Amino acid sequence: MPTFTNEELLGQLNWRYATKLFDPSRKIDDETMTTLEDSMVLSPSSFGLQPWKFIIVEKQEVKDQLLPLSWNQPQTRDCSHFVVLAYDDSFQLSEVDRYIDATVEARGGQASDHDALKGQMVGFIQRSIDGATIDEWCKNQIYIALGQLMASAAFLGIDACPMEGIQPAEMDKVLDLENSGFKIMVACALGYRSEDDKYATLPKVRYPKAQIVERI
Amino acid sequence: MPTFTNEELLGQLNWRYATKLFDPSRKIDDETMTTLEDSMVLSPSSFGLQPWKFIIVEKQEVKDQLLPLSWNQPQTRDCSHFVVLAYDDSFQLSEVDRYIDATVEARGGQASDHDALKGQMVGFIQRSIDGATIDEWCKNQIYIALGQLMASAAFLGIDACPMEGIQPAEMDKVLDLENSGFKIMVACALGYRSEDDKYATLPKVRYPKAQIVERI
Repeated sequence: MPTFTNEELLGQLNWRYATKLFDPSRKIDDETMTTLEDSMVLSPSSFGLQPWKFIIVEKQEVKDQLLPLSWNQPQTRDCSHFVVLAYDDSFQLSEVDRYIDATVEARGGQASDHDALKGQMVGFIQRSIDGATIDEWCKNQIYIALGQLMASAAFLGIDACPMEGIQPAEMDKVLDLENSGFKIMVACALGYRSEDDKYATLPKVRYPKAQIVERI
Repeated sequence: MPTFTNEELLGQLNWRYATKLFDPSRKIDDETMTTLEDSMVLSPSSFGLQPWKFIIVEKQEVKDQLLPLSWNQPQTRDCSHFVVLAYDDSFQLSEVDRYIDATVEARGGQASDHDALKGQMVGFIQRSIDGATIDEWCKNQIYIALGQLMASAAFLGIDACPMEGIQPAEMDKVLDLENSGFKIMVACALGYRSEDDKYATLPKVRYPKAQIVERI
């Protein structure tokens, strides 16, 4: 398969920015949107347990409903697709069996082939439930998917804006997630930058690399 | 700049997997490693506040020291570069001024041009410190960088294995992070898959897309 050169990769990562103004007339075509969905499905997660759900809002009337729940940030209304990332807020030990079953489905063999792995997973999850860190662990995984989504968008030439400044509990209501076992954590608006977005051409603000990266 | 086609993007995301066995004889060349460092520096973060530090271990003797601190998972020893992602565990309001100063440095103008943004940032961070959610917020950002790193590696044809199964406090000691204000959260081994890694060719285990993604 073709890969990027170093220059191409950094070119796209420098091209991306947290888009402030989207061009509301430009929509992501369906094949590309399906690719971005697939990139989320393919996101890595701890043990592969995928403790998440992704809601993709394309209907304008729903985006309009979400606008006041994101402090009226215009990205919510003007983007092409508004992606909402929700975590499993009642993660159960039974998810391990679900994963093992999916493994057998994908790779053949029997559930009992995975007893050693299952023991590790059950041990980790039970400790996380007992220690009340299971929610934090699920939320962390969501941010891997967010990272993969934003990078994938950049490499396809799609603009994105990650949005933590939302009212997740209110969005849960609008998107019928109450009582679903999932809670919204963060959102990401996708689409195409407006020609009027002055932030598109401003230099990036990054701390000097020597303050961030150390090689040993 | 060139971008990937949908097929190329999904090809690389399907090519990647959590590498279990690295080829210890193959090293990532310096230009590519610098590109991966730059991709971490360019990771998006909430408000752009970059509450992180990345340690890249290339010395074999240090990787060997870290091996028992990752439950002897051979990736730690056999990878080309072992990346450790640490979060700011004493995030202070003063980080807002640091960011505003960096903005002025990158874009010109004066700090006072950003008073409205500064007010928003200070409000958010003060609430997060008061509510004891600031650590969780910093950790979440780390996982965006992890997601961007894994995706970037895949698009460069570099193998990776994210590793939560580490003893972070012990690694802090080996890597001299104690009293640095940063704590290790998660690691990612980078390099090239071994021809003996049977996991390289196994089908991916993902739940049916209909259980994960919803379009509205």
